[in-house]
Amino acid sequence: MVSTHPPSGFRDFIQGDARLRASLIQKISDVYQSFGFSPIETPALENLDVLLGSGGGTENEKLIFKVMKRGEKLQEALSKGEDAIADFGLRFDLTVPLSRVVAEYRGQIQFPFKVFHIGPVWRAERAQKGRFREFIQCDVDIVGSKTNAAELEVIQAVVAAVAAVGGSGFELRLNDRRLLQAFAEKLDLDAKGFSDFAVLLDKKDKMEPADLLLELKSLLGSKMSSDIERIVKEEMSLKDFAAVHSQAAAELSGLIAQLENLNLPLTQIVFDPSLVRGIGYYTGTVFELRHSSAGYSFGGGGRYDQLIGRFSKEPIPACGFSIGFERLVLLLKEKAQAEVQSQSGLFIPVFDEKLRGDVLRLASKIRSQGFEVDVFPDAAKLKAQFKYASEKKYRWVLILGEDELSSRQFKLKDFENEKEIPVKEPELLSLLRKVFSDPQGKSPTD
Amino acid sequence: MVSTHPPSGFRDFIQGDARLRASLIQKISDVYQSFGFSPIETPALENLDVLLGSGGGTENEKLIFKVMKRGEKLQEALSKGEDAIADFGLRFDLTVPLSRVVAEYRGQIQFPFKVFHIGPVWRAERAQKGRFREFIQCDVDIVGSKTNAAELEVIQAVVAAVAAVGGSGFELRLNDRRLLQAFAEKLDLDAKGFSDFAVLLDKKDKMEPADLLLELKSLLGSKMSSDIERIVKEEMSLKDFAAVHSQAAAELSGLIAQLENLNLPLTQIVFDPSLVRGIGYYTGTVFELRHSSAGYSFGGGGRYDQLIGRFSKEPIPACGFSIGFERLVLLLKEKAQAEVQSQSGLFIPVFDEKLRGDVLRLASKIRSQGFEVDVFPDAAKLKAQFKYASEKKYRWVLILGEDELSSRQFKLKDFENEKEIPVKEPELLSLLRKVFSDPQGKSPTD
Repeated sequence: MVSTHPPSGFRDFIQGDARLRASLIQKISDVYQSFGFSPIETPALENLDVLLGSGGGTENEKLIFKVMKRGEKLQEALSKGEDAIADFGLRFDLTVPLSRVVAEYRGQIQFPFKVFHIGPVWRAERAQKGRFREFIQCDVDIVGSKTNAAELEVIQAVVAAVAAVGGSGFELRLNDRRLLQAFAEKLDLDAKGFSDFAVLLDKKDKMEPADLLLELKSLLGSKMSSDIERIVKEEMSLKDFAAVHSQAAAELSGLIAQLENLNLPLTQIVFDPSLVRGIGYYTGTVFELRHSSAGYSFGGGGRYDQLIGRFSKEPIPACGFSIGFERLVLLLKEKAQAEVQSQSGLFIPVFDEKLRGDVLRLASKIRSQGFEVDVFPDAAKLKAQFKYASEKKYRWVLILGEDELSSRQFKLKDFENEKEIPVKEPELLSLLRKVFSDPQGKSPTD
Repeated sequence: MVSTHPPSGFRDFIQGDARLRASLIQKISDVYQSFGFSPIETPALENLDVLLGSGGGTENEKLIFKVMKRGEKLQEALSKGEDAIADFGLRFDLTVPLSRVVAEYRGQIQFPFKVFHIGPVWRAERAQKGRFREFIQCDVDIVGSKTNAAELEVIQAVVAAVAAVGGSGFELRLNDRRLLQAFAEKLDLDAKGFSDFAVLLDKKDKMEPADLLLELKSLLGSKMSSDIERIVKEEMSLKDFAAVHSQAAAELSGLIAQLENLNLPLTQIVFDPSLVRGIGYYTGTVFELRHSSAGYSFGGGGRYDQLIGRFSKEPIPACGFSIGFERLVLLLKEKAQAEVQSQSGLFIPVFDEKLRGDVLRLASKIRSQGFEVDVFPDAAKLKAQFKYASEKKYRWVLILGEDELSSRQFKLKDFENEKEIPVKEPELLSLLRKVFSDPQGKSPTD
């Protein structure tokens, strides 16, 4: 018999988990939309050459799930060896596809292009606890804006989205890639040297500070300095950096002041000189959301002014912020689960199969007023139907037997308080409205 | 330079198209939820052996996008030939993953399991106009119900969902796989013979009736009969079929009577003795939605009582209905596009960069009341900002210059009627509520 586990590193979501995820995605999407961002949808599969060399970071490119060619092309490719066999790859992020899309449709797009993009991405990571090979990202991007007004807006939108789903206790950390780059130039590091330096700094969260300093020393040799130590310890200030790149330092400090001024629901907004956010496509600001409960970020972003230029003759500046959905779900799980469960609907049992038509017609009428109505979808004894209603945690049950149907006088049963409220058909909808809009969930006869 | 087209057969959606798709998916999902169906989410990738031999129809199995193994496993596989190279495949439908999920989690699921599943599926079809390799399905299923109460409910839900997005003019066609099977047995067709017969019948929409009859004649030889001709011409009635399978005929006729009784928004409900819905996993009822404008279906489903048994020792009966989302979108496009465009938000220009903080704080306050507020995310002249607002079709613009900010007396500009309404800050939200809730879109000073 075939195994029914999902492939290693992949997950199924059912019942409460699936409901929670769907409701979080809907809320995040509503917040993005409330800022005037408009959705885009791109394919799961991209031509491999779009994904390779995209500046998505060599790390991510190593992790592409590759899709085999088909038919005759596969036959031809098999003799040519490994690299010829695949033509498509599963996207490893949403920023590379967005950049391709902007280049492809730039004639019909009005800039600044305020866009959001929510969907799964795939990385062939070694499967391990808490690391998934399919996970959802919730990106918000502004393409075509050179100024920090774009940073301000994507940060405001992400913070609002995280708050809307009930997240709190986040801090925002910011840096500017140009500061580290200018600093490295002053040290006389070449491109390779800078990249190695950045890769090490990027591992900061996963290493002991002393070990990191040792590795930096062994990489930099005589170039190791007390300033580097201060970067690692986050003691270098933006003022200190003004000496190496005055414009970037001034802009970042302006951005931080504007952010402070917005009174966002954040615990703090901090300059982190060691923040790298991968060695990928970022060219200016980089930022991430942190939570005191975890040593990793709940979302990150930054400015990538060169990535679209890879696909288009005219480079177009861009800036984005992505919510790490899976980590956010874990953080919110207990809290939100409770919320979702209390959004109950109405259950109507079918006392006799010959009444099913009447039940379904009434259910349809109640649904058309915006209520959720569940009917047991099988011929079964009442006991089984009530067991189903109780397992699905329905508090309200509409009793609709033959007598009730002929007199059009129903009973609304409150399983929490073991009460029955008699109701005539014309008053049913207003009673339901009363019962379901009451945030206290109090019985209307209390 | 890398090509920016999506891979052949794949599509990008931006602006109006993406907004329309997202809003349709939300509405369909809301309707499914209003019936007490709960969402599930399954991976894009499945182990290949789940997809192969799944009874998903040999046709679909030929069309699986296969994912290459990675690392050492790939190196080993390369020497073993084509069939060893892939370990995963992209799902070609949502029913096979659902069946695997039910088998895997059957201990924690309460039956009947009322579930919906919305997401993309992939088929390596030859790319051609109107045929896509990635497309969305919107499935609704009831697992664990043997009776037609399940059919009744999935049909009611799908018809309600299609109506909720503005679809009309659909007819429902139904058949029962057991009728054709019993008919074929009476003809003394073996399994292969029945399957060939069903494959031919399934091509009915794509062929001239005369050609189909010729092919049937050549397949069946002396077994060809006037009854088969009557099946093709849809002249065989359920009464006629009672002779070959009285139970199936009686059940289907009962289901049709119950459906008629629900007064669903359908043009008609018809028994179609030639309806096959693929040669896949269906074991009983099959049904589909048709529209007078097209010779293909907008959704189909049926009963698949054996599929879950492939993954589990205990077979579990199941029944589902899937909306062909892409075809529905095409049908609704013009109509719904207009609807989406009229849902405009509020635009606030930034008269001076030093006012941006004030604008963003006010925008945030207005959004928290459920309104959409767009702010231009770049330092730009007013002319560029108003051009952006007009291209994004914002009718209402809030004027918030230095004078307005210091007096807290704003102007709400109506670009449709070229009017300005002065409003003090404390009255702003109630004015906006008035302006945006008015379905006529009338200016409040009219």
